Amino acid sequence: MYSFKKVSDFTHEVFLKMGCSSSDAALATRVLVSADLRGIDSHGVARLIGYVRLWEAGRINPTPKVRLVHETPSTGVVDGDAGLGLVVAPKAMDIVIEKAQQVGSGWISIKNSNHYGIAGYHAMMALEHDMIGLSMTNASPLVSPTFSTERMLGTNPIAVAIPANNQPAFVADFATTTAANGKLEILQRKSEQAPTGWIQDKDGHSSTDPHELKSGGALLPLGGDRDHGSHKGFCLGSIVDIFSGVFSGANYGPWVPPFVSFLPMPENPVGEGIGHFLGAMRIDGFRPANEFKENMDTWIERFRSAKSTEGMPNVLIPGDPERQSEAERKQHGIPLNPKVVEDLKEVAKKFDLRF
Amino acid sequence: MYSFKKVSDFTHEVFLKMGCSSSDAALATRVLVSADLRGIDSHGVARLIGYVRLWEAGRINPTPKVRLVHETPSTGVVDGDAGLGLVVAPKAMDIVIEKAQQVGSGWISIKNSNHYGIAGYHAMMALEHDMIGLSMTNASPLVSPTFSTERMLGTNPIAVAIPANNQPAFVADFATTTAANGKLEILQRKSEQAPTGWIQDKDGHSSTDPHELKSGGALLPLGGDRDHGSHKGFCLGSIVDIFSGVFSGANYGPWVPPFVSFLPMPENPVGEGIGHFLGAMRIDGFRPANEFKENMDTWIERFRSAKSTEGMPNVLIPGDPERQSEAERKQHGIPLNPKVVEDLKEVAKKFDLRF
Repeated sequence: MYSFKKVSDFTHEVFLKMGCSSSDAALATRVLVSADLRGIDSHGVARLIGYVRLWEAGRINPTPKVRLVHETPSTGVVDGDAGLGLVVAPKAMDIVIEKAQQVGSGWISIKNSNHYGIAGYHAMMALEHDMIGLSMTNASPLVSPTFSTERMLGTNPIAVAIPANNQPAFVADFATTTAANGKLEILQRKSEQAPTGWIQDKDGHSSTDPHELKSGGALLPLGGDRDHGSHKGFCLGSIVDIFSGVFSGANYGPWVPPFVSFLPMPENPVGEGIGHFLGAMRIDGFRPANEFKENMDTWIERFRSAKSTEGMPNVLIPGDPERQSEAERKQHGIPLNPKVVEDLKEVAKKFDLRF
Repeated sequence: MYSFKKVSDFTHEVFLKMGCSSSDAALATRVLVSADLRGIDSHGVARLIGYVRLWEAGRINPTPKVRLVHETPSTGVVDGDAGLGLVVAPKAMDIVIEKAQQVGSGWISIKNSNHYGIAGYHAMMALEHDMIGLSMTNASPLVSPTFSTERMLGTNPIAVAIPANNQPAFVADFATTTAANGKLEILQRKSEQAPTGWIQDKDGHSSTDPHELKSGGALLPLGGDRDHGSHKGFCLGSIVDIFSGVFSGANYGPWVPPFVSFLPMPENPVGEGIGHFLGAMRIDGFRPANEFKENMDTWIERFRSAKSTEGMPNVLIPGDPERQSEAERKQHGIPLNPKVVEDLKEVAKKFDLRF
């Protein structure tokens, strides 16, 4: 177990060493480590070495000028200036929230950015303003459309955060694939088989071997195959890609740059960097906030008390597992995989720090 | 085969007999029959008798005053005055489009409505204005959340329509369940088994018997079970329910009124009628429309040419199958199931019409 403070302080030092300003380093740390707190281990400090390597490869600008380059009262495009998505996205979300304050809703598509941590962080920024928040991003191509063997889309997550009154907020945050890549990595480490519908091999045949992804296989859209609705998962991943990439002028589809620095950049890029799409709607743009939030309490309580299948737990409200993890880890610390600790020590050495 | 004109003319007559104004009857007909044209047979004239029975039960107001009851420049709530969703939704979409013209985007949640036909119709209204359209609705509870045996959500569809330049528009329109109810009805008629992941029996066990839905079973959220991501399908269905019902002040979750008139209305309703949520974003609220649409062409062409799995067709772009059906059926007519023809003859008799 590593204390939240230790993990945060180290991450902050690393971003400073990369040349980030003090406030940007603090912001990037807050976003990155929120993943470790919320139990989404694949998106937290496990990725820190990845960001460092991208920076070493000259693909991350530590001092970006995040600028609104086009706008209407409720929409716009932000140029992330090749900054860390961990910094670009929350700054763009500030603009989204300001627009929502002024005209009821705000929608910003972002180009020229990099990976932005967990989608949920940015969506949840809206909650304290009595707004609903929405966040999505495209990502390195790992997913094949239904009927295809080519990797054309990222795991392209969607997050939606909705405030309630006495109940905690509803926070959905999920990849548009059957299983997120992080879950596959866990199976790879344990050498366990995956359920059907998660992956296919290089020829497009269903597989349960989590290592297939390293031999030309692909993750599958939510649904798994046509009979089980994978065309719907493909629709969702495509919508995320278009809103994030085509709206903004970022790369899209198979042209999205890989997160890992050792893979070459795609040839003939169709845009700049990777793309995100962020939105917020003021609750009282629809009905009085207290009335809405009381009805959200009723919604959540009714679903929580729905009759369970025998032997199964109660219905989980989106955000429940992450909130429980956050409470536990703030108190007891963050468990880090030995491989992640090794990576962090390598980062420490690089920058003459200690971990 | 029944000609598009014959089916349309009859439907128009029926709505007139229900007391709709001439322009409302024409609008409702256009929306309803668009489902038959696009090959979504479950949502077209197959439902006409259902609307008639709801009207007979006093649950549909044929002369609604569709009113904006709350607004900001980019958001608002419409009261459908218990009208046909087929009329209420396109009128609300007109308001959405006007807001998008003025401030870049428009978002309207609708209460006190009824079933609105295919989600895609309303989303596609945005296309001719160089906007992206979005449409969703809640519906009669038929779907159990992951881990539960209770029917808590409808099949709650989502539609997103995105214009391109030389390529036809990208039009996704799908239920947030593994399979739409219409597909199950086809299996019921043929007495064929369903794939796993579509339905569960009354005790929450996986089933392949399409008749289980009539004995207390339920449809399953996209994904089917927890291992295959059904919690994500549950998130999607929940978001649709909250945006459509809780935003607007309509009913939500298990309180959504049933479409069939012989089922009793839920007790202690939490809102008025059923709810929809409609949105539009002006393309040039993000980047010049021609630039965006040319990139959409590139997106569509690249995905269409992705390498196919051996023995499989090419990747389908969302909207391809419906567009093909529309072209064929406009020319050759609409095939109607004998049971549907019987229902239409019953409707004809009721109103002293002929079919």
